[in-house]
Amino acid sequence: MSKYLIIGGVAGGATVAARLRRLDEQAEIIMFERGAHISYANCGLPYYIGDVIKDREKLLLQTPESFKARLNVEVRVFNEVVKIDRENKAVVVRNVETGEEYTESYDKLVLSPGAEPIKPPISGIKDPSIFTLRNVVDTDKVKAYCNDHQPKRAVVVGAGFIGLEMAENLHHLGMKVSIVEMAKQVMAPLDYEMAAVVHQHLKTKQVEFFLKDGVTSFKREGGVLNVTLQSGRQIETDLVILSIGVKPENKLAREAGLELAPNGGIIANEYLLSNDENIYVLGDAMAFPHPITGKLSNIYLAGPANKQGRIVADNIVSGNTRKYKGAIATAIAKVFDITVASTGIPEKTLKNEMMPYTANIIHGASHAGYYPDALPYTLKILFHPENGKLYGAQMIGYEGVDKRIDLIATVLKQGGSIYDLQDIEHAYAPPFSSAKDPVNQAGFAAENIVSGKLKIVSWDEIHNFHSENIVLLDVRTAAENELGHIEGSVNIPVDDLRGRLDELPKDKKIIVYCGVGLRGYIACRILTQSGFSEVYNLSGGYKTYEHSIC
Amino acid sequence: MSKYLIIGGVAGGATVAARLRRLDEQAEIIMFERGAHISYANCGLPYYIGDVIKDREKLLLQTPESFKARLNVEVRVFNEVVKIDRENKAVVVRNVETGEEYTESYDKLVLSPGAEPIKPPISGIKDPSIFTLRNVVDTDKVKAYCNDHQPKRAVVVGAGFIGLEMAENLHHLGMKVSIVEMAKQVMAPLDYEMAAVVHQHLKTKQVEFFLKDGVTSFKREGGVLNVTLQSGRQIETDLVILSIGVKPENKLAREAGLELAPNGGIIANEYLLSNDENIYVLGDAMAFPHPITGKLSNIYLAGPANKQGRIVADNIVSGNTRKYKGAIATAIAKVFDITVASTGIPEKTLKNEMMPYTANIIHGASHAGYYPDALPYTLKILFHPENGKLYGAQMIGYEGVDKRIDLIATVLKQGGSIYDLQDIEHAYAPPFSSAKDPVNQAGFAAENIVSGKLKIVSWDEIHNFHSENIVLLDVRTAAENELGHIEGSVNIPVDDLRGRLDELPKDKKIIVYCGVGLRGYIACRILTQSGFSEVYNLSGGYKTYEHSIC
Ligand SMILES: Cc1cc2nc3c(=O)[nH]c(=O)nc-3n(C[C@H](O)[C@H](O)[C@H](O)COP(=O)(O)OP(=O)(O)OC[C@H]3O[C@@H](n4cnc5c(N)ncnc54)[C@H](O)[C@@H]3O)c2cc1C
Ligand SMILES: Cc1cc2nc3c(=O)[nH]c(=O)nc-3n(C[C@H](O)[C@H](O)[C@H](O)COP(=O)(O)OP(=O)(O)OC[C@H]3O[C@@H](n4cnc5c(N)ncnc54)[C@H](O)[C@@H]3O)c2cc1C
Ligand SMILES: CC(C)(COP(=O)(O)OP(=O)(O)OC[C@H]1O[C@@H](n2cnc3c(N)ncnc32)[C@H](O)[C@@H]1OP(=O)(O)O)[C@@H](O)C(=O)NCCC(=O)NCCS
Ligand SMILES: CC(C)(COP(=O)(O)OP(=O)(O)OC[C@H]1O[C@@H](n2cnc3c(N)ncnc32)[C@H](O)[C@@H]1OP(=O)(O)O)[C@@H](O)C(=O)NCCC(=O)NCCS
Repeated sequence: MSKYLIIGGVAGGATVAARLRRLDEQAEIIMFERGAHISYANCGLPYYIGDVIKDREKLLLQTPESFKARLNVEVRVFNEVVKIDRENKAVVVRNVETGEEYTESYDKLVLSPGAEPIKPPISGIKDPSIFTLRNVVDTDKVKAYCNDHQPKRAVVVGAGFIGLEMAENLHHLGMKVSIVEMAKQVMAPLDYEMAAVVHQHLKTKQVEFFLKDGVTSFKREGGVLNVTLQSGRQIETDLVILSIGVKPENKLAREAGLELAPNGGIIANEYLLSNDENIYVLGDAMAFPHPITGKLSNIYLAGPANKQGRIVADNIVSGNTRKYKGAIATAIAKVFDITVASTGIPEKTLKNEMMPYTANIIHGASHAGYYPDALPYTLKILFHPENGKLYGAQMIGYEGVDKRIDLIATVLKQGGSIYDLQDIEHAYAPPFSSAKDPVNQAGFAAENIVSGKLKIVSWDEIHNFHSENIVLLDVRTAAENELGHIEGSVNIPVDDLRGRLDELPKDKKIIVYCGVGLRGYIACRILTQSGFSEVYNLSGGYKTYEHSIC
Repeated sequence: MSKYLIIGGVAGGATVAARLRRLDEQAEIIMFERGAHISYANCGLPYYIGDVIKDREKLLLQTPESFKARLNVEVRVFNEVVKIDRENKAVVVRNVETGEEYTESYDKLVLSPGAEPIKPPISGIKDPSIFTLRNVVDTDKVKAYCNDHQPKRAVVVGAGFIGLEMAENLHHLGMKVSIVEMAKQVMAPLDYEMAAVVHQHLKTKQVEFFLKDGVTSFKREGGVLNVTLQSGRQIETDLVILSIGVKPENKLAREAGLELAPNGGIIANEYLLSNDENIYVLGDAMAFPHPITGKLSNIYLAGPANKQGRIVADNIVSGNTRKYKGAIATAIAKVFDITVASTGIPEKTLKNEMMPYTANIIHGASHAGYYPDALPYTLKILFHPENGKLYGAQMIGYEGVDKRIDLIATVLKQGGSIYDLQDIEHAYAPPFSSAKDPVNQAGFAAENIVSGKLKIVSWDEIHNFHSENIVLLDVRTAAENELGHIEGSVNIPVDDLRGRLDELPKDKKIIVYCGVGLRGYIACRILTQSGFSEVYNLSGGYKTYEHSIC
């Protein structure tokens, strides 16, 4: 009979335990969790705080008792593993409630300790109105604080996916929410012009946000907490949520001499083994080569942790037969009324890594425009400029954003290209899509660029071009042009273009733009095939330009 | 300057024309349409009848004028091509309004004539209250009839995707709808037990349906139309929609000696060329080898027609460089409150073709159960019993059915397997999915079968097993068991099973079932590893069984 120990009882750990039992009815399986709960819905915590999830019980997917009854797994909550003795294949465990320590031996050990919220040593950070959010106990604290103090104002520090979910939920409770973020944008996995769409949306919700600014101190004055920013700005608040990121829980691993990545993640090989053949590692704490960049990365997401769990259990029982392929960080968040999603790597990473790439942005509608309630989306994809291999995608919109990002992630992860996007055979009826799905359109538009049929410029390149030798051509209607246009552009609607070619100089660069890029593309094709040699289309059209420059 | 002629001005034809122009600004492009409109939204017609789409203009995506202005394509509506003269590379065109005929020569000809509704020679079928639905003119007629006669009752003959959309829309207008269908189920691309879910749903909407029954005659008596069925049943009605299927428009092609498939489709090769190197063919009229069965098939769907259009244009301009990969008939329909979708081939086809396969059904929720409004889905997948290669999938549920069927279709079309389903890295946050998406779960559950960890039986096999040597074991709770169970089963809840193994005989076959299959699976694993050798799980659990047997 084999004996398996598991450290950490949530997304990664609990999944390993469950699958292990299904594979091996006879094994002894013990799962250690230093906290009060196992198998809780981390991802639901913000929504419980926001009263969207009303029933606390719902957060607890399993209890030690249910785990025992269903799966015959011994769960020890309030039991922290404090040492791994690799030589003797044993761990030292401390009962958190009694302080007692004991030893437990293993045949195989599984590490899924997760990652902990970063709490920088800012003056005043210990104030009782400042919270981080990782588990149910943290959540109970925020909830109790809200009930007891009825905060009217909240500051969310850090505008990642979780920060924005918290902003939404606190807003939902009626608080005036301010977001403070060091970067020039919210949601780091997005590129700037995509984040700009989120910025616009936050404004419509009266959520205040301060970008390129960080907290330098917290100070309590009377009933009020004063948050001072680097810029000197002061925000008075009643509640602070710190969500500036997490770091891998690697203390045990480090002390046991397991190999760590530069960022602190515990390195796993393709079987999810650490450098000790009896210790598997998974989840937030694990560093694994990123499928696109090849760099050791941690992926702080529940989907990968759950999937890794099954692989780890299989490898334990059947002796390392199953390979993990890595995760490309496909992520999504509902941010008030919009949905924001991304997969793969953004343009900024491609730039940093000096990888050759092309980025293109399209806009369209969630389903056939003639069927009611079609809503706009913006989709950016990144691909190799020659072979069209996909690097990443970002999408913002309403219904169906999840669908499209999942489709692109699926293609991307299989090493696919823009041509595979074209081939996606989606299910089409008017309530669900268009005859050409947005993912197809992204593939078509990208191919036109890769094959040289269309040259594009991006919203931030347009200003570099401001010179005598450029014509900025707005091919929208006169009415659209009047509502707003790029400084210095001339207006010839695409439908008039063939008849008015002589108004344009053949010796100048022409930068064409329309609303979203489609009419601009058609205009570019007309011009390119009519003797104009240097013709560019503004990627994402005026819509992206307008969002991004303000 | 090349001259391209296109026959048919809607999904396939108009797309070819548009892309041709973008590729070749100088070519002469003429598009012939015998009807009154081009580029209309066929798929929106039922919804316009149902007043869901209120504005008729919205159905017309382009007009001859807009096509001319934007794309410089000459569109000739009311112009029917009546003959193809392959030898002289010319067509004979009849002006439908004047009756005049003229000839037009081509360098390349494109055939996208579509398919026409089947109207069997049933007595009384010419009654003015009986309609088929293909184009805007047909739709106008139904609409006018409804306005003039205010029908209270409608009969829909044929329960395919379009038939059910029509049923929903007529019901939406307040009519009492009856559906008549020759097969034993609605929606042919589904297998019976999946269609059974639709049957249940139709009942909740007070939609009457008569299966395994066909119309033998229509007879007008006074203001009422009497519909007589094979069974002898009579239905009185005010309006009939015939939607029993379509057949390829192949008259022109046949007379021109183009090669036809047994079902009448015009055969295309991988470049979408007919057997004449100057004639391309696409859309509903085209027969192409099915990617899974290899058999020549027509796919009556707008997505493929649109995508083929782009390929045809590319091949015309750049000389047959782009290959079409075929379509696997990924389709979807909203049927009242539920969404029904399918891709690939169903179990019945696999049976007919005598291909080795395994079918498995799972049930789950559209997103994390702890987040509000998670709704149930049922997902059936079909795969090779040994290598797990996917053949098809069918899914019914509410939100997110489109997403999952698209994901499975994408994997399937790339020749993928159940293992690829497991690897799908979906975007997860509570409003959108679960940490393991349904597509992952389908892959996991299938792998357990392929790898021999679990044996399954289907709802319709269970009765074959009724014998002395079988134990039917319900592992749900006693309370669930009391609400309904399979005749003759014993009840041991899964959580008690380990302690009550001695109540079960080791020399008999044990068929386990639970609500949806998951607890049954766990029970099977316990039993199999505790000395019981012949243990089976009921695929889809009691839920599928209950839906299917009634
Ligand atoms: C508020 C919030 C919202 C989130 N939303 C999403 C989302 O929408 N989508 C998404 O994909 N991901 C989301 N995540 C991330 C997701 O929850 C994590 O990626 C996932 O839980 C990681 O699983 P894990 O097993 O590695 O770690 P965890 O689930 O954190 O579990 C680790 C457990 O190990 C325990 N532990 C650590 N060290 C020891 C020790 N020495 N002894 C005993 N026990 C120990 C810890 O107490 C902890 O309970 C969210 C996370 C949070 C906090
Ligand atoms: C009511 C309805 C609902 C539908 N819903 C969906 C759906 O939800 N999803 C989906 O994917 N598909 C749906 N479809 C199917 C989809 O519309 C077709 O697959 C698609 O339109 C096929 O395109 P096509 O170009 O081959 O033919 P069509 O779009 O039918 O166009 C063919 C045109 O050619 C013209 N023509 C034929 N012969 C000649 C000739 N000799 N000379 C000149 N003109 C000629 C015809 O008049 C016709 O207008 C639906 C169809 C209908 C009728
Ligand atoms: C609750 C928890 C222990 C469940 O783990 P699990 O049992 O592996 O996962 P599920 O309940 O999804 O069940 C999956 C299993 O059911 C099987 N299954 C699913 N539906 C099935 C069906 N209808 N019929 C048969 N089997 C089915 C799958 O094949 C899989 O089994 P396998 O891995 O042995 O192949 C674990 O997911 C957990 O702790 N989650 C909470 C923490 C967390 O994930 N947090 C982050 C997200 S908020
Ligand atoms: C209306 C119709 C003529 C349009 O054909 P189309 O111009 O090929 O299709 P779209 O309007 O979707 O445009 C697609 C083109 O725009 C490009 N595009 C899309 N969004 C873009 C953007 N934001 N920037 C640049 N280009 C973009 C695509 O690359 C593609 O061009 P390409 O094929 O040259 O690569 C044709 O679809 C039609 O007649 N439809 C109605 C009939 C029908 O389909 N019925 C069944 C469904 S109801």
